[in-house]
Amino acid sequence: MSTPLSSTKQESLDILSSLITKTAKLSKAASRKIATASTEQKNSALNTIAETLMERETEIKKENEKDLEAARASGLSSAMIDRLTISSGTILSMVQGLRDVLALPDPVGETVKKWQRPNGLAVSKMRIPLGVIAMIYESRPNVTVDAAALCLKAGNCSILRGGSEAFHSNMILAQIIQDALAKAGLDRDCVQVLPVKERDAINILLQQEEFIDLVIPRGGEALIRFVVQNSTIPVLKHYKGVCHAYIDKDADIDMAMNICINAKVQRPGVCNALETLLVHEEIASSFLPAMAEKFSQAGVELRGCSATLAILADIKKAEESDWDAEYLDLVLAVKIVKNMEDAITHISTYGSDHTDIIVTGNPENAEYFIKNVSSSMVAVNASTRFNDGGELGLGAEIGISTSKLHAFGPMGLEELTTTKFVVRGNGHIRQ
Amino acid sequence: MSTPLSSTKQESLDILSSLITKTAKLSKAASRKIATASTEQKNSALNTIAETLMERETEIKKENEKDLEAARASGLSSAMIDRLTISSGTILSMVQGLRDVLALPDPVGETVKKWQRPNGLAVSKMRIPLGVIAMIYESRPNVTVDAAALCLKAGNCSILRGGSEAFHSNMILAQIIQDALAKAGLDRDCVQVLPVKERDAINILLQQEEFIDLVIPRGGEALIRFVVQNSTIPVLKHYKGVCHAYIDKDADIDMAMNICINAKVQRPGVCNALETLLVHEEIASSFLPAMAEKFSQAGVELRGCSATLAILADIKKAEESDWDAEYLDLVLAVKIVKNMEDAITHISTYGSDHTDIIVTGNPENAEYFIKNVSSSMVAVNASTRFNDGGELGLGAEIGISTSKLHAFGPMGLEELTTTKFVVRGNGHIRQ
Repeated sequence: MSTPLSSTKQESLDILSSLITKTAKLSKAASRKIATASTEQKNSALNTIAETLMERETEIKKENEKDLEAARASGLSSAMIDRLTISSGTILSMVQGLRDVLALPDPVGETVKKWQRPNGLAVSKMRIPLGVIAMIYESRPNVTVDAAALCLKAGNCSILRGGSEAFHSNMILAQIIQDALAKAGLDRDCVQVLPVKERDAINILLQQEEFIDLVIPRGGEALIRFVVQNSTIPVLKHYKGVCHAYIDKDADIDMAMNICINAKVQRPGVCNALETLLVHEEIASSFLPAMAEKFSQAGVELRGCSATLAILADIKKAEESDWDAEYLDLVLAVKIVKNMEDAITHISTYGSDHTDIIVTGNPENAEYFIKNVSSSMVAVNASTRFNDGGELGLGAEIGISTSKLHAFGPMGLEELTTTKFVVRGNGHIRQ
Repeated sequence: MSTPLSSTKQESLDILSSLITKTAKLSKAASRKIATASTEQKNSALNTIAETLMERETEIKKENEKDLEAARASGLSSAMIDRLTISSGTILSMVQGLRDVLALPDPVGETVKKWQRPNGLAVSKMRIPLGVIAMIYESRPNVTVDAAALCLKAGNCSILRGGSEAFHSNMILAQIIQDALAKAGLDRDCVQVLPVKERDAINILLQQEEFIDLVIPRGGEALIRFVVQNSTIPVLKHYKGVCHAYIDKDADIDMAMNICINAKVQRPGVCNALETLLVHEEIASSFLPAMAEKFSQAGVELRGCSATLAILADIKKAEESDWDAEYLDLVLAVKIVKNMEDAITHISTYGSDHTDIIVTGNPENAEYFIKNVSSSMVAVNASTRFNDGGELGLGAEIGISTSKLHAFGPMGLEELTTTKFVVRGNGHIRQ
């Protein structure tokens, strides 16, 4: 008897579906235990992962080499291959990340708030883990270790689905993590790497609402939109960072130039890099020529509004599409605004709620800007580049959320938890 | 020329879609202004709504009568008609709700946390509104006023889509609310009632991710599942409340009976009513007969496990389906457990993460239960009925979330906000 092709396809989908459902169920079951694991147990697992990564470096690189060979054969871009590569430096940075997370205080069990009701009921809010977190990400295999560590420390189970191009790398990292969990007396299922390459796996994973509490996609906008469209599970997402600096008329010019260069040039390919510069019209003619020269020395291409072109004759004119562009490159849009209100309107029209800053010597304007700009980080006289879990003092971050629900901005350990109400009575009944 | 039917259908969908997109855009634009409105302005609008509701009672009832007539004609159940009716009592309770929200502190602008970085950067987290909240609900027209008031006080815009059976009632309430906003100098678009009866409207609304920050469905499980399946916007949801009471062997028997009667009988049709009673085997034979008599006097039907049947011979046997049933009625499942661990396993297997309580005189057991049960409210020696925003001291609630993301449990004003990072520097750049 022969099976028609469509039925074979259906059968393999059924097998995939049952595998993923089983993974999710095991994760949910394990999440009940890890939720109450001691800090010592969790730290011991983190420590073992770090030690094993160093011990088994050669072996890890060998598995990684299998992925790299396939990547080269399939003609992956050199940038992709770069991100896929596990070097000694990558391993050291994973180890350092583990040690950082190990040193952070355990958020689970903390009483966040407490109060008493007039009837004598003692009410408090206690921090508890979210439960099961699914991460969907692309090439970098170090995310496997970083994400597993943060989820674990906050008492969560994780299901990790890395890119298919990093399959062998992720599998050996998963094995190292699971062995460390077992050695610490924790359930191996607390961290599971989905051992399937099929894209259909993501679709099936996104329907496991009964077992998974949160999905975090990390990658390009297309991946994130796909996850949002297809998930019944809450999604923490980060579309893009169109970050603005507004230079007020009372700004210290040197400070403004320093901050803008840092924000644009220090690492142009990241989400908290500067993309649009807004300049008060009264300061434009003194500020822009000197600023443009510095940008030119740093290799930054400027694209200006007509008023900017009247001051900087030799730059390109900005099109409408430049105002909401996330260049992630040495390109910057420049606009002269009438006043701060005008700058704020521009930001709320074209911004992405990510990071926006003001440079000003006027404290009233600083407070007004803080109050009226609703981005995940609003800064006064500091670079956009500080919107980062490490820089803000969260210790580590699993990502930056640009949606306002649950967490807004960098997400550290605390943002990987929720709170429950705890009520202590003495036979209290409701009247 | 005649138009084919399918094209007419498509045209009307297009019109609906453009209407809803316009509503969502206006809401987003208005949300930028209401985010920084003063507490006085918001309170003044709330006060005017309350006064106008009382002044225009006759007119409101006349509009409500149109809905009631249509409901009777279409054969709606008496329970549905009851919920649809705006009586003088309904108006008084809306007015009281408005006064309660008016009296609550304004959460917007509060500095939740602040710290300093080693480099001198001053970092804080400031409470800000979520933005635009869409509520999708069924018959009760009072939700229109209650939800609008809570959203407004927390600085959010709301888009309200009530049931089509309450169309006329909701339209006059919307008009009263919008007039009050205008009188307080606020934008009428801060509260918009979707003036469309079509179910397709919900589908279109759920795709307005660009303009809407949160969707809160209130109604039966089918409505909530529909919203979760079709929304690209984050959803705050509440599926069901399968609430448990565990009576420990060290429980005070009288206290346990009082609490169980209150939890089951005081208002059996609500989500925080008791649905399953778990009894330690060592206390079962002394506790259950007296308890069963009280339940019988209160008209409660018991369904027991086999061990329970050995003590209470004349009750019905519980089926597997009884253990995760949300009866919302005078029915209670009863199970005898070996010990507390057994009770906790039962709760994590069949519970809904809503409300679970322990009655015990043993403080160690109380703490163990608190730590190991992850429901939105865990209580010791107090009724399940306290899981309510008002009872816990939140002032008011827009609903109870049983998903752990963003908010878990009753949601008051604070849960209708998020926080942004505020950074104050002195020319700080990233190294």
